[in-house]
Amino acid sequence: MTTPSREFRLIHDYFSGHQACPRELVVPIGDDAAVIDWDASGQLVVCSDTLNQGIHFPDTTLPYDIAWKALAVNISDLAAMGATPVYFTLSLSLPAADATWLSSFSEGLFAAAGEFNIILVGGDTTRGPLSVAVTAIGSVAPAQAVRRCGASVGDGIYVTGSLGEAAAALALLSRGEVAGNDHRPYLMQRLNRPLPRLAWGQLLAAHASAMIDISDGLCADLGHILQQSGVGARVEIARLPLSASLNACVDKAEARSCALTGGDDYELCLTVAAEREQALAVTGRENDIVLTRIGSIESEPGLRLLDDQGAVISMDRQGWDHFA
Amino acid sequence: MTTPSREFRLIHDYFSGHQACPRELVVPIGDDAAVIDWDASGQLVVCSDTLNQGIHFPDTTLPYDIAWKALAVNISDLAAMGATPVYFTLSLSLPAADATWLSSFSEGLFAAAGEFNIILVGGDTTRGPLSVAVTAIGSVAPAQAVRRCGASVGDGIYVTGSLGEAAAALALLSRGEVAGNDHRPYLMQRLNRPLPRLAWGQLLAAHASAMIDISDGLCADLGHILQQSGVGARVEIARLPLSASLNACVDKAEARSCALTGGDDYELCLTVAAEREQALAVTGRENDIVLTRIGSIESEPGLRLLDDQGAVISMDRQGWDHFA
Repeated sequence: MTTPSREFRLIHDYFSGHQACPRELVVPIGDDAAVIDWDASGQLVVCSDTLNQGIHFPDTTLPYDIAWKALAVNISDLAAMGATPVYFTLSLSLPAADATWLSSFSEGLFAAAGEFNIILVGGDTTRGPLSVAVTAIGSVAPAQAVRRCGASVGDGIYVTGSLGEAAAALALLSRGEVAGNDHRPYLMQRLNRPLPRLAWGQLLAAHASAMIDISDGLCADLGHILQQSGVGARVEIARLPLSASLNACVDKAEARSCALTGGDDYELCLTVAAEREQALAVTGRENDIVLTRIGSIESEPGLRLLDDQGAVISMDRQGWDHFA
Repeated sequence: MTTPSREFRLIHDYFSGHQACPRELVVPIGDDAAVIDWDASGQLVVCSDTLNQGIHFPDTTLPYDIAWKALAVNISDLAAMGATPVYFTLSLSLPAADATWLSSFSEGLFAAAGEFNIILVGGDTTRGPLSVAVTAIGSVAPAQAVRRCGASVGDGIYVTGSLGEAAAALALLSRGEVAGNDHRPYLMQRLNRPLPRLAWGQLLAAHASAMIDISDGLCADLGHILQQSGVGARVEIARLPLSASLNACVDKAEARSCALTGGDDYELCLTVAAEREQALAVTGRENDIVLTRIGSIESEPGLRLLDDQGAVISMDRQGWDHFA
């Protein structure tokens, strides 16, 4: 399970190794965000993520929600570094200059910007198929950014919140299951207006040996931690945090599949050294952080998923792969 | 002629006025790049520009050239602020993960990054219609960034290099005029591998009251300076710097039209107070900067183009308008 997705290999193959890495570039390309030594008092954290129509959101998604999500997915990357958002740019390609669409889009954009306390500083608007590229700049105290590569054997593996809801919402949408129950709106909100774990990320950063946000599915994203840390892991499926809403909308097998490989969760996955787990629990309790220990880091490479009886099960879907 | 392009109005209408502008944001959205007070020793300069297939480059453009140009157009924005490039991110959407295409693209990207001395720090690669969004981060000494809004009555108007060549190359391509003369390859290079005036921008910044890079055509971009400075201008068409190569490939009327409204020049347009024009000339001579005085700033709003006899002529094309 630690094979990087084909998308990741693409980036790795074609955009790595072409340039010298200056000393100021503390965390280069390949993490949730780059970390740059800019001055003595703090580091710059930079990330870029793009949403394309039909790939990252269905054609029916409201412009408000597209804008919200385009910013939120970048905030989630900053959250995974333990960073604080400061500024962002927006590169918006759209087929036509439709006033209604733009009004709704900008309303969602600035609602999200207000929620995440980040300021739009520039960008451009051009004609083209609908595509929303955001670059977010955050700050972090020197040496406080949490990378993907710090997991060690024996570390506990934790996730925040609950998993699989956005993927289940998308599955219900794609099956055309419109008649719903009281839990459907919550699932749709998880898909369309994610709330990245910004405050939690900053609190958890002090305890985490490695951290990543879950955007491509738990297996794929935990896989990045394992690969970059040179370790393996076991995860007990019965421990996955599945919400009552998720269980009310899909059966157990689908709920687990969504939680493991669905993606679009924008929760955090972190590893924590055994000696810090008690302190983590205190931080979690004091700050109402929803935190679940789902497994542990092992020396044997690969990700082993354990069923309810503790037996290793095999998986074939490995999380969202854009070029699969 | 100072009516902003419809693209500009779009940005202005929908993405301005929604947020408080913090004191640290020295130059907010609406200039070539944003300028941010990050620490005492220097300011952060941030810009984003996107190239979409079929809109910003023809379908036949080589992947190497697409990458080069995507980075170059952002470097040109930094040049217009007098800034020094430091880091950039790339958000690449492409229809398929084609190895040949990606090899050529990344070769062009890192050739340009080496040329402009800027480091790739992150980004993402996703499936979608071909779109290349770059965000560039530069640095500038405090209070040294040159804005669009500083032009005053009596200032001289200067442009670097020569104008209209990229637009002429695109016109020749679109007319299918493949049989060429010795000058055609140079014009094609101006279209496909622009060399933004980075070093010149840094030298000119000390003298300029306002500066912008010419990406949408001289009339449109000078128009931004006039509008944001609350002034007008006269430009003598006979003074436009038209290269021998341009004149060898298109007739005089087309050459002038390309220079005034064609776009894709990635030269700089700057205004300089009368008392600084002598110092500017010295800087230009000492550094081999190709610099032409094409007109002057006046109090009467609007841009007046003067023909060879000094009479005001009327224009209908106002530079590239993405939503025209």
